[in-house]
Amino acid sequence: MLGLDPDPSKLWPDALAQAPADGPPAGRAAAAVRAHCAALIDAAGPACVAVKPQLACFERLGGDGWAALAATVRHARAAGLLVIADGKRGDISVSAAAYGQALVGVTATPFGDVAGLGADAFTANPLLGIDSLQPLVDAARAAHAGVFVLVRTSNPGAADVEELALAASGAPLWERLAAIVTQLGDGGASSRGGLTDIGAVVGATAPEHVARMRELMPRTVFLLPGIGAQGGRVGDLAPAFAPGRAGGLISASRSIATAHEAGGAPASAARAEAERLRDAAWSLS
Amino acid sequence: MLGLDPDPSKLWPDALAQAPADGPPAGRAAAAVRAHCAALIDAAGPACVAVKPQLACFERLGGDGWAALAATVRHARAAGLLVIADGKRGDISVSAAAYGQALVGVTATPFGDVAGLGADAFTANPLLGIDSLQPLVDAARAAHAGVFVLVRTSNPGAADVEELALAASGAPLWERLAAIVTQLGDGGASSRGGLTDIGAVVGATAPEHVARMRELMPRTVFLLPGIGAQGGRVGDLAPAFAPGRAGGLISASRSIATAHEAGGAPASAARAEAERLRDAAWSLS
Repeated sequence: MLGLDPDPSKLWPDALAQAPADGPPAGRAAAAVRAHCAALIDAAGPACVAVKPQLACFERLGGDGWAALAATVRHARAAGLLVIADGKRGDISVSAAAYGQALVGVTATPFGDVAGLGADAFTANPLLGIDSLQPLVDAARAAHAGVFVLVRTSNPGAADVEELALAASGAPLWERLAAIVTQLGDGGASSRGGLTDIGAVVGATAPEHVARMRELMPRTVFLLPGIGAQGGRVGDLAPAFAPGRAGGLISASRSIATAHEAGGAPASAARAEAERLRDAAWSLS
Repeated sequence: MLGLDPDPSKLWPDALAQAPADGPPAGRAAAAVRAHCAALIDAAGPACVAVKPQLACFERLGGDGWAALAATVRHARAAGLLVIADGKRGDISVSAAAYGQALVGVTATPFGDVAGLGADAFTANPLLGIDSLQPLVDAARAAHAGVFVLVRTSNPGAADVEELALAASGAPLWERLAAIVTQLGDGGASSRGGLTDIGAVVGATAPEHVARMRELMPRTVFLLPGIGAQGGRVGDLAPAFAPGRAGGLISASRSIATAHEAGGAPASAARAEAERLRDAAWSLS
């Protein structure tokens, strides 16, 4: 999966050239971000099944940035790719429902319906509990979309909270989060290829836990960030792919977008790096 | 504090009338949302110290919605109110830094700097640990802004994760989150009135915990959502105000915006309800 984390100060040169020659910086930068993401999708997309735009990278350019995000989602879908909106949202009741509308749903207004981003799935934060996830799950199911719930993230600080041992079980908190993912997934009306519609975000930087996670979540798709720049290695992730190729989605962002820094043109270097990661992942399954 | 959770299907009639007569639904609805929030701020703002826009309510209208959010932030600040951007964000490393840029910071681009929302503070989710919060804290401090970290939310589902007892202490997870808040706050260079720049979100619907939270976080500002529509009562929150009036920020959204449903014009009913809540809170301190 191709992570899209566009940094306006590190865009491909051809994308910068596509920005308008004048106007406010936010609009010009957003146009360049949009062109950069489109070029990245065109280059690396054929070696990927999905793109994962990180929402803050677009939000920092305001309304223009959000419009660039929406255009990027449309471009990826037109290229036949799934879109996983990575915002790690989590809130309660009507606020959670509003996130569902923004990401995969529709908002009724007196002026007509307004469609949200139209993502195929999105990431969600489970700290606030099951009743905070349920409106997101409901919105996703209504749109035939999926949810990836954070279980154990790829950063060292995951130890501070996610790894805390619980009194009831002695197991780390993330095992409880895995149980919530399984519970929500079992409520799904449909399953494709034996997999449920509620996935889990499982950091690729802690491969020692992946086998246990697969045991706890046998029918769950794992979104595996942290490959490449964060140090995760595809070869360590075999348990994620135990149910088959569709059981794991490895995600890389910077290692693809900046592959040309080791030589070559941006597009061809990105394509080669994406193909290398794909082949490494598929050799495991 | 005035919560701004605009639902495009429940806007004040005068605000609907300010939308353009034609154009795409998103633009018209966003214009009406902007007018609604401005009218609510003008009506209830004088009885409040801050507004708390809930970001998803704007994001569901796309780029137009985000532009309406930015306009609402400017309107509130021009009225002398603090702005707390309620997005409950949480992510790692460069992604967390990007949220900081979007909410309180600035983004450097080849076309010039792009200012973010310009909020005075924002809410953050601590599930991913201290290294995920640090870039948000750093961004806030650079902008002389604050962060409110989720500790114990106002929904019943808070019991699913936040209330889990930890093996090490026997105490609920939220006590560990409170310790993280205190740790981050103690690293602050400045404190105003003996309070730190890192606050805590503490649901007003579980007042039985507020005294313990005050014990764990003696110098922390508490953001107390859940008053009104969610069932929380101001009179139960005295411990929050123990350090003085500035120690607690009670937040109400729907009970103010819909006060006119019990009679009266929207603006005067909203003002009266906001004044009632303010007087109730101040009588505790």
